[in-house]
Amino acid sequence: MSKIRDEVLSANAKYAADFDKGDLPMPPARAFAILTCMDARLDPAKYAGLSEGDAHVIRNAGGRASDDAIRSLVISYKLLGTREWFIVHHTDCGMETFTDDVMRGLLESSLETSTVDASGWHDHGAGPGSHEGDYIDWLTISDNAQSVVADVKRVRDHPLVPARIPIYGYIYDVRTGELVEVPEATEAGAAG
Amino acid sequence: MSKIRDEVLSANAKYAADFDKGDLPMPPARAFAILTCMDARLDPAKYAGLSEGDAHVIRNAGGRASDDAIRSLVISYKLLGTREWFIVHHTDCGMETFTDDVMRGLLESSLETSTVDASGWHDHGAGPGSHEGDYIDWLTISDNAQSVVADVKRVRDHPLVPARIPIYGYIYDVRTGELVEVPEATEAGAAG
Repeated sequence: MSKIRDEVLSANAKYAADFDKGDLPMPPARAFAILTCMDARLDPAKYAGLSEGDAHVIRNAGGRASDDAIRSLVISYKLLGTREWFIVHHTDCGMETFTDDVMRGLLESSLETSTVDASGWHDHGAGPGSHEGDYIDWLTISDNAQSVVADVKRVRDHPLVPARIPIYGYIYDVRTGELVEVPEATEAGAAG
Repeated sequence: MSKIRDEVLSANAKYAADFDKGDLPMPPARAFAILTCMDARLDPAKYAGLSEGDAHVIRNAGGRASDDAIRSLVISYKLLGTREWFIVHHTDCGMETFTDDVMRGLLESSLETSTVDASGWHDHGAGPGSHEGDYIDWLTISDNAQSVVADVKRVRDHPLVPARIPIYGYIYDVRTGELVEVPEATEAGAAG
């Protein structure tokens, strides 16, 4: 048993001991969804004021509008009734610190964790590495506001996304805890 | 301004007013990651005892080991140093309530939200629909324990995932708040 697993199960036992939310329905009570980054500093329930049962939360590296995020969003509205969506990227995102070429090079050298300094990422050369990174689009970010605009637009333009769903674009500031709108991203949604 | 957006921004203003976590580093302090479902009833920070900065949280419909989840996990260990992973599905998951054929049929009829009753899902026939659902694998679940086993195995066998990373398989019980291990899923990780 690992220390981390011990800690997680111990925390879970405390949570379950006081648990009084066993009767919540499956569809989100507040009928919205948030797509955001996996970053450890982000707690969407805290930064957006969610209780258990309120809203769908979809998270991946960057909070990007990947095909899988769109799969999740379509299930969210079509089967579970969400009617508004937030796409939230954040400041100081790891996805801004590398490019596809950098990631592919690091993975070719070694699967060990790389380190970063002022001159960029460095692999540990411990091997074995893999060329499989060449077949993945890592969905890196060069500009936060642009990535929010692009992702809102990608979701908006998807043929399975109804025109009526508003899609709000935000950047979460990891220094202040604030959600800052990207006004040029937000798509109001068609009336009706 | 929508009511939901008002409420989210109001909750965020309260969170930011007391925010004292602006100096957290990017890499997760506790060096682990959780892949789990977007379901509104799940709050991984609460059910696993996470504070801001502790761990990566990846979420999608079902908590499935999609290509995008694997993209996120590889970034998590390779660039940001996580060393243990949890894959957590849950009881009463929406992904158990339909099949690819059902979802594709519903989307062909209409993009409006469908309803469900004892006889299954029903579309509202309001049109327009779309055949684009045919091109998406919806990653539905027929058995929770099996889906955890399959997803841990898919991650374990991925050529970019180092053999040393332990991958723990769990099912979260939405009635009790408890994490229940799927022992046949868990992959200890190679020594070294």
